[in-house]
Amino acid sequence: MSVYETLNALGISLPPPGPAAGAYTPVVRVGDLVFVSGHIAKRDGKPWVGQLGSQVKTEEGKEAARRVAIDLMGALHAAIGDLNRIKRILKIMVLVNSAPSFTEQHVVANGASELLNKVFGANGGHARSAFGVAQIPFGSCVEIELIAEVAS
Amino acid sequence: MSVYETLNALGISLPPPGPAAGAYTPVVRVGDLVFVSGHIAKRDGKPWVGQLGSQVKTEEGKEAARRVAIDLMGALHAAIGDLNRIKRILKIMVLVNSAPSFTEQHVVANGASELLNKVFGANGGHARSAFGVAQIPFGSCVEIELIAEVAS
Amino acid sequence: MSVYETLNALGISLPPPGPAAGAYTPVVRVGDLVFVSGHIAKRDGKPWVGQLGSQVKTEEGKEAARRVAIDLMGALHAAIGDLNRIKRILKIMVLVNSAPSFTEQHVVANGASELLNKVFGANGGHARSAFGVAQIPFGSCVEIELIAEVAS
Repeated sequence: MSVYETLNALGISLPPPGPAAGAYTPVVRVGDLVFVSGHIAKRDGKPWVGQLGSQVKTEEGKEAARRVAIDLMGALHAAIGDLNRIKRILKIMVLVNSAPSFTEQHVVANGASELLNKVFGANGGHARSAFGVAQIPFGSCVEIELIAEVAS
Repeated sequence: MSVYETLNALGISLPPPGPAAGAYTPVVRVGDLVFVSGHIAKRDGKPWVGQLGSQVKTEEGKEAARRVAIDLMGALHAAIGDLNRIKRILKIMVLVNSAPSFTEQHVVANGASELLNKVFGANGGHARSAFGVAQIPFGSCVEIELIAEVAS
Repeated sequence: MSVYETLNALGISLPPPGPAAGAYTPVVRVGDLVFVSGHIAKRDGKPWVGQLGSQVKTEEGKEAARRVAIDLMGALHAAIGDLNRIKRILKIMVLVNSAPSFTEQHVVANGASELLNKVFGANGGHARSAFGVAQIPFGSCVEIELIAEVAS
């Protein structure tokens, strides 16, 4: 199955990439590596605001991370034209807007990791760091950046 | 225009790199990639202390990020000898020492991004993650690390 | 001296890698680069819980970072089979679970950096970012991710 057939089967349609929230580039490629900028969680097109451990529950944060993964794939699709050219998702960094007592960043991050594994199969297995941050631009609950390998 | 002519036109002189604040190496190269360690914001040669959202205003934080970008270029110049050999600024990670309510990390980060865009032109367009951290070494308000591509 | 002789001389035996704490892959290789996922500090096989600046002292945090470096080497050994094939430790990112007033993340991070320098000699010199985060999965006091270059 192609990546797009899998996305279809999951009922996921990739959004067009939104504008960068600053003076940076959403996706940068060097050789076979692609760096995707940190994307914040959105809901109804607006920042999904809140902190895990207070306003946002773990399961909601996990869903937020899943939606960020969809936006990351949308950005990758727009930049490289064909997601089937992804040879490997190499690494994601998952930032969780965390109240001092919240320690389930790894559960939140699984929302993104599980989807990447499903969509890319064996090529989706990625290294990961997940941790709690003090804040995220626009007060969003989750931010994720990604590095991938693309076929030349 | 060479990178140095642009820096001159902007009135920027690159500082010699300071000593590493620990048992690490400021700049490490592998093939065409260069990893520049996290550099903290300084003012008058000392850590620029404070937290965004309490003691440090957004515009001050943006200026702090701009100065870190200058130090990063100073470190790159010292390590590779000629900034014109930079083929691309690939990615920066901008850490903003943030009070719980501060959500303008992307504005602060623009202080570095806008300068890199000016100095390196089309080669300066970089991926980026910016987020709020609980603290930074020496209490500095901003820390930035950088990855670049260098001509072999 | 081989890496393993050095480890022996230091009285360090590498642990087998533990299970991933989520839907990610502990070590991912692309070409000559190896990405090692964020590993949390453990003590007696359990998360080494606590925050620097409140329950955990700087020297304890430094020891925690040293132990994470041992686990990272254990993960690398399991993934690539022979640590002597490491050409260079390129970069580590050291996350320190920090109370608002704690500003010695660089001292904590030295626990990992100094050990990597000892074990890998000239190949151990690495770029680094160290900063304070709001929380870490399972409440651990330190988390570290690593990127290395491996001989092909």
